[in-house]
Amino acid sequence: MLNPADEAFGARLPQGVLRPVTEAYLEEPRGRLHGKAGLIAAPRDLDETAAIVRACAEARVPVVPRGGGTGLVGGQVMWDGPAPLILSLERMTAIRNLRPTEDSLVAEAGATLQSVHDAAAKAGRMFPLSLASQGSAQVGGILGTNAGGVNVLRYGNARAQCLGIEAVLPDGSILRDLKRLRKDNTGYDLRDLLIGAEGTLGIITAASLRMVAQPAGVGVAMLVVDSPAAALDLLALAGERMAGCISAFELISGQGLGFVAEHFPDLRQPWSEPPRWSVLIEIGLPSGLNPSDALEGLFAAAADKDLVSDGVIAGSLAQSQALWDLRERIPDGNRLVGAVASHDISLPLDELARFITDADAMLAGMADVRINCFGHLGDGNLHYNLFPAKGKSRDAYDDQRGRLSDAVYDLVMARGGSFSAEHGIGRLKVAELERWGDPGRLAAMRAIKSALDPFGIMNPGAVLA
Amino acid sequence: MLNPADEAFGARLPQGVLRPVTEAYLEEPRGRLHGKAGLIAAPRDLDETAAIVRACAEARVPVVPRGGGTGLVGGQVMWDGPAPLILSLERMTAIRNLRPTEDSLVAEAGATLQSVHDAAAKAGRMFPLSLASQGSAQVGGILGTNAGGVNVLRYGNARAQCLGIEAVLPDGSILRDLKRLRKDNTGYDLRDLLIGAEGTLGIITAASLRMVAQPAGVGVAMLVVDSPAAALDLLALAGERMAGCISAFELISGQGLGFVAEHFPDLRQPWSEPPRWSVLIEIGLPSGLNPSDALEGLFAAAADKDLVSDGVIAGSLAQSQALWDLRERIPDGNRLVGAVASHDISLPLDELARFITDADAMLAGMADVRINCFGHLGDGNLHYNLFPAKGKSRDAYDDQRGRLSDAVYDLVMARGGSFSAEHGIGRLKVAELERWGDPGRLAAMRAIKSALDPFGIMNPGAVLA
Repeated sequence: MLNPADEAFGARLPQGVLRPVTEAYLEEPRGRLHGKAGLIAAPRDLDETAAIVRACAEARVPVVPRGGGTGLVGGQVMWDGPAPLILSLERMTAIRNLRPTEDSLVAEAGATLQSVHDAAAKAGRMFPLSLASQGSAQVGGILGTNAGGVNVLRYGNARAQCLGIEAVLPDGSILRDLKRLRKDNTGYDLRDLLIGAEGTLGIITAASLRMVAQPAGVGVAMLVVDSPAAALDLLALAGERMAGCISAFELISGQGLGFVAEHFPDLRQPWSEPPRWSVLIEIGLPSGLNPSDALEGLFAAAADKDLVSDGVIAGSLAQSQALWDLRERIPDGNRLVGAVASHDISLPLDELARFITDADAMLAGMADVRINCFGHLGDGNLHYNLFPAKGKSRDAYDDQRGRLSDAVYDLVMARGGSFSAEHGIGRLKVAELERWGDPGRLAAMRAIKSALDPFGIMNPGAVLA
Repeated sequence: MLNPADEAFGARLPQGVLRPVTEAYLEEPRGRLHGKAGLIAAPRDLDETAAIVRACAEARVPVVPRGGGTGLVGGQVMWDGPAPLILSLERMTAIRNLRPTEDSLVAEAGATLQSVHDAAAKAGRMFPLSLASQGSAQVGGILGTNAGGVNVLRYGNARAQCLGIEAVLPDGSILRDLKRLRKDNTGYDLRDLLIGAEGTLGIITAASLRMVAQPAGVGVAMLVVDSPAAALDLLALAGERMAGCISAFELISGQGLGFVAEHFPDLRQPWSEPPRWSVLIEIGLPSGLNPSDALEGLFAAAADKDLVSDGVIAGSLAQSQALWDLRERIPDGNRLVGAVASHDISLPLDELARFITDADAMLAGMADVRINCFGHLGDGNLHYNLFPAKGKSRDAYDDQRGRLSDAVYDLVMARGGSFSAEHGIGRLKVAELERWGDPGRLAAMRAIKSALDPFGIMNPGAVLA
């Protein structure tokens, strides 16, 4: 049994760590969930973090870790059970030991992704993980959820950027593993176990991260394709020509561009009528090869195979940015329209095109919805989101939402996909994990959770019920 | 307490899985360790593997998993305690569901790395993990030990090639997670936990692996550098010019080339007198860029900065292969000379050059040894190996070996390095892990081991004492 984080418990914490309980700590970006909190604690360093967790372990008080609060599955808001202590990493924001010649830096958990980008750029390097929410998202949350974003195709997700971690385990003990090594085979991979565990196995307090060199030449293009199948063929063709130098390959639907046109009319679009399907491709090349030439060569080869019908190749940094702006406004457009249901899914690449065709057809027979399917095609990761028909409101779909999502997930899982590609489980997808998770895997997860957190104080209700 | 795998126990196993106990199952490549075995079991499929492990769990019989047997730290040979059952994956060798358009395949644990390479090549793709021992090393062992090799710099180690696993857990239950997904954030990362656990947390029976496109143009060069520091500067320069297209960057010492010249006199070397330091660089480029031109450009830029003094750029596939042969014969040369002590270490890149200088100086004051320092410089991974002085035998160093290795490891660890970069812990480095492992990390490892393998049947004595 867990106990609430009450005033008497607060008196046992290190001096000066408590902060007033304000709304900002209880919210999540979509505004649909509301957490509770007995206390908010913001430690200044590792030792204070450990002291807080140790006190929670002794008193059986639940701990909800909080980074930038940008997660989309409710991992950061606990609404059930005794009022938790929210452990905010907001005061641990240092970026230290940035080593450009080694391409490594150490960031504390509360540092924003943007601050890591800025520090790397200042040293002439690049941190290769980009998210729309990077101004608020923090390193601890990014690792805790194994965040993805637009450059995973080339550089991998958050997991792949991390060389080492420092963490406080559920009993308040400290795991010190801030290595700067590219190779280290000395025992179990606890780093990857904590990454993506969404704060249920411990709290990451700092991470050693890798940087990369900026590619010598960067090119961006938006190409019109006939279908997702053609987009995948284009990706394969690009893969063969580019030797892994594709930094992003994003699928964009006409519906998504339509929402953007409706809500951001000042944003110039390449076509007066949004093409039904297009892709945004970014390449980063070795020196000696002109990116525009490479993209023109790709376009010509793709046109020969009837894979592309039109396209724009950015001729300047401003034009590249304008194309990216279009892509990045799609989630904003979605928010303003208001989704009936959103699905962060992934599929094996060979199943992806058929999934889109089949899911579209299935939903057409089930409900009057508009579908905006977009996302990180190179990773097989789609955001398959449903919106009210024109003139209808989101609320009108309240009694259909569950049925529609179930049907989408059923189809995804039948094709060997994932019901959460990059957002994680949080509290919103615990039932889905129960339903579709492999029983052997779930049993092993429970055994590990019990072994490391026997009292269940770490982010209770997240990931595992 | 564990029980031996005796005849009575053998009668409880599935029909036809037992094989005669022969020497081949009890050996390791360096011929210095000798394991024992009560029974050898070679299951034909997942269900038989699970049945064997379940029987072992019930009877508390130790299980030693065996792949190609090429490991260098004794993970595959158990010489202490009750005679184990050796579980050989040699009959599970299928490669199935190879999907070139998706760049994925599923390999059973007993498939050799070479057979995965061949299958990928036949489909016009590439499996990006290369080891000297790939003709014998098997997928299960490669994942169990998170093997490295020469292409880690670009493609990552074994871990990074794996999209999903199927495994038998220590209680005989099955973990089914043969996903073909690039992104899947649905719970704890058990895949990465089993990878590198050296068979102590379960037995990987099959893996879903990624393939990659062959780069459009491949170039190889061997460049003479003044020092490891210059080699690192060259690596940084190449990184900036090549946008991540460096497939290998290997440091080679004059001592290593000398051993090769001595034992493989037919192998032509580029220089009559081996240069004190050189690097082998391989690049794999996008189409439109000539690899020889790119390497010549790199050489010119490096010469401008006084980083290189000489070099050969391969003009043909045969010449590329000849340069690689030189590199790959270095371990064979070492074996024929007979090392006093070998150290598979890694260092933060910023510490690496100074480490070599300091370690060389330290050893010069300690013993009369020849040092062959070579390895995967791009990963900070050195094979820092000590050999008898000319005319002396390996045995003459028996009473110095421990002291010399301790001194090397002490220096490595003081500089933030690792005492096992790619070979793992096995049974030979258990004491080192005890000594240098972070206490918080070790405690968490033990908790996980107890949770998943409460009777300690899985590869006892490996990784954790």
